[in-house]
Amino acid sequence: MKVNEYFDRLVPNYLFADVARKTGEFAAAHPEKEIIRLGIGDVTLPLAPIVVAAMKKGCEDLLYQETFKGYPEYEGYDFVREAISGYYKSFGVTVLPDEIFVSDGAKSDCGNLPDIFAQDNTILVTDPVYPVYVDANLMAGRKIIYASSGKENHFLAMPDKSVKADIIYLCSPNNPTGAAYSAEQLKVWVDYALENDALILYDAAYEAFIKDDSPRSIFSVEGARECAIELCSLSKTAGFTGTRCGYTVIPKELVRDGHSLHAMWYRRQATKFNGVSWPVQCAAAAVFSDEGLRQIRHNLDYYRRNAQVISDALDELGIYYTGGKNSPYIWLECPNGMGSWEFFDYLLENAAVVGTPGEGFGENGKGYFRLTSFGSYEKTVEAVERIKALINQR
Amino acid sequence: MKVNEYFDRLVPNYLFADVARKTGEFAAAHPEKEIIRLGIGDVTLPLAPIVVAAMKKGCEDLLYQETFKGYPEYEGYDFVREAISGYYKSFGVTVLPDEIFVSDGAKSDCGNLPDIFAQDNTILVTDPVYPVYVDANLMAGRKIIYASSGKENHFLAMPDKSVKADIIYLCSPNNPTGAAYSAEQLKVWVDYALENDALILYDAAYEAFIKDDSPRSIFSVEGARECAIELCSLSKTAGFTGTRCGYTVIPKELVRDGHSLHAMWYRRQATKFNGVSWPVQCAAAAVFSDEGLRQIRHNLDYYRRNAQVISDALDELGIYYTGGKNSPYIWLECPNGMGSWEFFDYLLENAAVVGTPGEGFGENGKGYFRLTSFGSYEKTVEAVERIKALINQR
Repeated sequence: MKVNEYFDRLVPNYLFADVARKTGEFAAAHPEKEIIRLGIGDVTLPLAPIVVAAMKKGCEDLLYQETFKGYPEYEGYDFVREAISGYYKSFGVTVLPDEIFVSDGAKSDCGNLPDIFAQDNTILVTDPVYPVYVDANLMAGRKIIYASSGKENHFLAMPDKSVKADIIYLCSPNNPTGAAYSAEQLKVWVDYALENDALILYDAAYEAFIKDDSPRSIFSVEGARECAIELCSLSKTAGFTGTRCGYTVIPKELVRDGHSLHAMWYRRQATKFNGVSWPVQCAAAAVFSDEGLRQIRHNLDYYRRNAQVISDALDELGIYYTGGKNSPYIWLECPNGMGSWEFFDYLLENAAVVGTPGEGFGENGKGYFRLTSFGSYEKTVEAVERIKALINQR
Repeated sequence: MKVNEYFDRLVPNYLFADVARKTGEFAAAHPEKEIIRLGIGDVTLPLAPIVVAAMKKGCEDLLYQETFKGYPEYEGYDFVREAISGYYKSFGVTVLPDEIFVSDGAKSDCGNLPDIFAQDNTILVTDPVYPVYVDANLMAGRKIIYASSGKENHFLAMPDKSVKADIIYLCSPNNPTGAAYSAEQLKVWVDYALENDALILYDAAYEAFIKDDSPRSIFSVEGARECAIELCSLSKTAGFTGTRCGYTVIPKELVRDGHSLHAMWYRRQATKFNGVSWPVQCAAAAVFSDEGLRQIRHNLDYYRRNAQVISDALDELGIYYTGGKNSPYIWLECPNGMGSWEFFDYLLENAAVVGTPGEGFGENGKGYFRLTSFGSYEKTVEAVERIKALINQR
């Protein structure tokens, strides 16, 4: 038998391992220093009470013959898909329940959706980029091209009409840069996709952090239903990183080569997936209830306040950054022309603050650095004071 | 963009839809008759109390900062993998925790494992067959060949040395036939795989039903660690069809083309999967505790008693069948040379009993019929009485 030789194209990314190693070495050498981690990409606040109550009720259902649940629908229970449809409606976007597929998370969908596409498609991603888009397609043997983002476009890559792409991954608000597209910018991408018979895979995992008029969904943009699939997650919206639930929206009118992409994805999921755990689906529906949305806002506001603390400090220091406003991520230019690992070392050694070197997310991450707002408020304030003192003293 | 044209190779299987339609039509025409369904492929008994308690405790953990869980390990928590390793040990098989990957179910793993294999591999499946093995590989463009099973080999297909296969799916005890390989038979498959540099994907989803000395794991067979991956599930073992948890074992010494298949699968899962829900992992570990194993035996024994009721009746009627002994499935030859749909109609119309026509599982299912033991004891007894009366009267 032959293994999938395309796995040899994958480059091991030791970013987080290297961050952990360096941090550990520093901690061992300086046991007296309190290290503050602002590199965390995972949520830290507990789930909302109404969500846990619904999940526990779901567990209880499995204890009795009358309420027991066996195999779920591949695409998710109706009441969950109706709740998600209602959530879209709350910000003015029409997505019908039967266009929604509930899954164990947006990462699975990001990686598995290419199953329904031919190998011979050119994948466009922005640089810097969430590595899953790249690796999932490298291992399937596809060609990857990059749209550059940087200071010149505020880390919001725009299409180059001279370049022909077939499938485009967009993430807005972006991981890692925190930058969010405007409606006008997304319209340019939709028009590019329509002109090129391309498809946009739109990762909206951070949409719940948007507080200005940036689109919460690509389906608020005219024409998107003919050229886009949207992926979303409860991981950041409601703290589901360890609970595992996401959803993908495929409009019924999305047809390519005479094939309904909705029907193809249904067939893929029916063959290679068996639906989401009953208690988790109960929890997901509770998130999108009125009371659920009220309760999750508490956590979102907590992280937003941290992001504000960091942004305010960078404004005060005159450091260029994106994100922070519509995103839990703050992407900053390393001061004084430092490289991203150089700044990592400088910050760790002189302020005992840990962040993430930007070059782990691509070429265009060189010279940049990611901080996140998922820590505690008190530690975020303390870290920011240390950073300010360090930069001002220089 | 281009869609995956291999999806056109998939043949829609309307088996269960046709069963439901015909049953519905009969029910509408004969409202006075009580229909008994022995076609159910899903469990019906609730989860064990200790499992639900552990799952509820897992939910509770997510409510508090101190016990909250974010992103899980891709391969499952250590305590779950240790519990599974201990379960293997309980029937004399050594599988180390770090050879185990916890997932959302064996169906996902059956379908996704081919990601680590090249397209240019020949897949061997037995006929009749669980359709997922076929469809997952058809949609990836692979060649499928069949090993025939039938009355001549008691529905236990054996390798043909003149045929060259690269990847072999085996399911024992089998879905749909209920037949279980002996250690000697599995050794023949292992030897075939070793001689041909082939790989066995061994689906042990029904191993908990084995009550004779048939192997519970392919790793009880010498040489299997050099040529087999084992997939298993809590769906039938512990009623997890709606709770969703399975596991896959890849020995560390399993190397092909200089690649560790364990390392390749880890990379695949790290890229396209994000682990299993915390409460579900807590529930899974509880299944494999001493008390958990005691409690799940109650349900297994209940289904086994149903299988015995069906088997006894077929013995009495002199009808040829496989399964029933080590499996919740009973696979019987349709009496009097009837076709499988013909027998379906005959049984429905004259006894108001519903089963599954064998031809839905492949060519070799023609003239065969699947009954399952997942119904209630009382209804199973009643159905069997009706079948006996019908066949005897003829």
